[in-house]
Amino acid sequence: MSNQVWAIGVDLGGTKIETARVAPSGKVDRRLRTPTPVAAGAAGIRAAIVEAVTSLRKDAPAPIAAVGVGVAGQVEVHTGVVRFAPNLHWTDEPFQADLAAAIGLPVAVDNDVRVATWGEWLDGAGRGCDDLICMFVGTGIGGGVVSGGRMLVGASNTAGEIGHVPVQLNGPLCHCGNKGCVEALAGGWAIARRAQEAVAADPKAGAALLKLAGGSREAINGKIVSEALSANDALARSIIDGVADALVAGVTVLVNAFNPRRVILGGGVIEGMPALVARVREGVMPRALKAATAVLEIVPAMLHNDAGVVGAAALARQAVAANPTPR
Amino acid sequence: MSNQVWAIGVDLGGTKIETARVAPSGKVDRRLRTPTPVAAGAAGIRAAIVEAVTSLRKDAPAPIAAVGVGVAGQVEVHTGVVRFAPNLHWTDEPFQADLAAAIGLPVAVDNDVRVATWGEWLDGAGRGCDDLICMFVGTGIGGGVVSGGRMLVGASNTAGEIGHVPVQLNGPLCHCGNKGCVEALAGGWAIARRAQEAVAADPKAGAALLKLAGGSREAINGKIVSEALSANDALARSIIDGVADALVAGVTVLVNAFNPRRVILGGGVIEGMPALVARVREGVMPRALKAATAVLEIVPAMLHNDAGVVGAAALARQAVAANPTPR
Repeated sequence: MSNQVWAIGVDLGGTKIETARVAPSGKVDRRLRTPTPVAAGAAGIRAAIVEAVTSLRKDAPAPIAAVGVGVAGQVEVHTGVVRFAPNLHWTDEPFQADLAAAIGLPVAVDNDVRVATWGEWLDGAGRGCDDLICMFVGTGIGGGVVSGGRMLVGASNTAGEIGHVPVQLNGPLCHCGNKGCVEALAGGWAIARRAQEAVAADPKAGAALLKLAGGSREAINGKIVSEALSANDALARSIIDGVADALVAGVTVLVNAFNPRRVILGGGVIEGMPALVARVREGVMPRALKAATAVLEIVPAMLHNDAGVVGAAALARQAVAANPTPR
Repeated sequence: MSNQVWAIGVDLGGTKIETARVAPSGKVDRRLRTPTPVAAGAAGIRAAIVEAVTSLRKDAPAPIAAVGVGVAGQVEVHTGVVRFAPNLHWTDEPFQADLAAAIGLPVAVDNDVRVATWGEWLDGAGRGCDDLICMFVGTGIGGGVVSGGRMLVGASNTAGEIGHVPVQLNGPLCHCGNKGCVEALAGGWAIARRAQEAVAADPKAGAALLKLAGGSREAINGKIVSEALSANDALARSIIDGVADALVAGVTVLVNAFNPRRVILGGGVIEGMPALVARVREGVMPRALKAATAVLEIVPAMLHNDAGVVGAAALARQAVAANPTPR
């Protein structure tokens, strides 16, 4: 699948651009970081990326074959046009074509969670596995699905929007406009919302959370709930019980629908509460279809903060493998 | 994808075996039907199929290239071993290999709803579409998923078990052992259960249902609820409102997870209440992700009672196309 070539991976976020030279093994060899010049527009952002890539190419131990970029936003498959990236203020930006022209190397662009899935698949917890799902539980929930050795993209490149799987009829409102999505129950923003509401409803039960947040209810977030949980706070425990239930329901949906061999759980909420992986496993195994769980493993992600750049490089390597440059 | 060859499709059920000679166009040319000799075991069932196939080959307008069979049960991909088919009393039956040896033609076996999906994809409402989901709402709910021009099978051939997508945390118990599956809310058996419970709880409200069932609460089934709905019965309407809500939730899950271009709804419950297709469409469009619904159509299935045999023939044609016989 992947190619024995060196690639550069770019994690393009709304606040910083991280760029890394990545070996064929998926190991980061050298990395650079720079603030995202959002105000400078697409041309300015492109220039910052070109500068970083040029610098990483200069002292590379082998020629760089391609550049991959992960963007937080909606990206069109193949063309790499960024349809919508609110953090960058981009709409219909022909980013892949423009960057390839500026760099003179093949460029592949996809959204950040899809890119992280490429990374876990080729160089992380999914290595060698042809049927897997990555679920990244951060502020939001996103991921990607590999089935039969292929990354699913769907009819308009939104396949794998697994945060927006509704698991509760008439559940709490999600940012997507629907109700009861797994993200609206288990994403970082939903944990914060639920904790803030619980503290408002019962300040006594919420005393520990409020204290950890320096007395400001609005400052309560997922990280603080996780800290309170470590200190054995009852309200935090009940909130995280709800998070675990929602993740179990969401992963059960995915296991029954896609029949993966491996489910890989990552993202800030999981990294902050790694015990959630075992809880999800213990919840899903008896609930999902027997024929599906018979072959199933549920494991933590491996790339952590490197998922963005390593994944982008993995995307670039496979794009080159799929479309070899004529020689 | 499919091949310009003639094939024979077999729909192997617990009560009858339907066999049809199918043209390259997907049109049924001649069909046979015989009771399933379940008591005669696998050898007896095989003999009945061989007899039907032999008869259909005799006067065929062109040579038959392959035979496809749909079985209600768990089937292993590629080998066509039937892992479990309760209606036939089969466990680990090497059906595909044995039938191929007996007939002397390539044989492809898969489960009945997957086979029906092949039929709708190649010869029905999914023709020419590379990203589609078929959902068959009958006594149970099953289906299949085509993504990027390939039928998804998953790690153990259970991909597309879309009836067992839980949509309601702690919802009603499903036959699969889990709670709140779309099948447990919208499958024919669940409609019957809910109607019977509602009639028991409020016989006055249930008077119309009870009358249609000849006074026997146990005889109330999905068909009777559908009849009562046509007669504008309030209880039936409230039950079917719940069915529509569950189908909307289930299809929203699938649209967000798989990003299909077409969702095809079929099966007895849909055929009995075809207005459900429009209700699902109207419910899903505002709820699923915009980027996914922008390319989405939700349409009724086209093959109806022929889905089994036409689908089995489509499976056979594509198996021959994928593995051409050496000449």
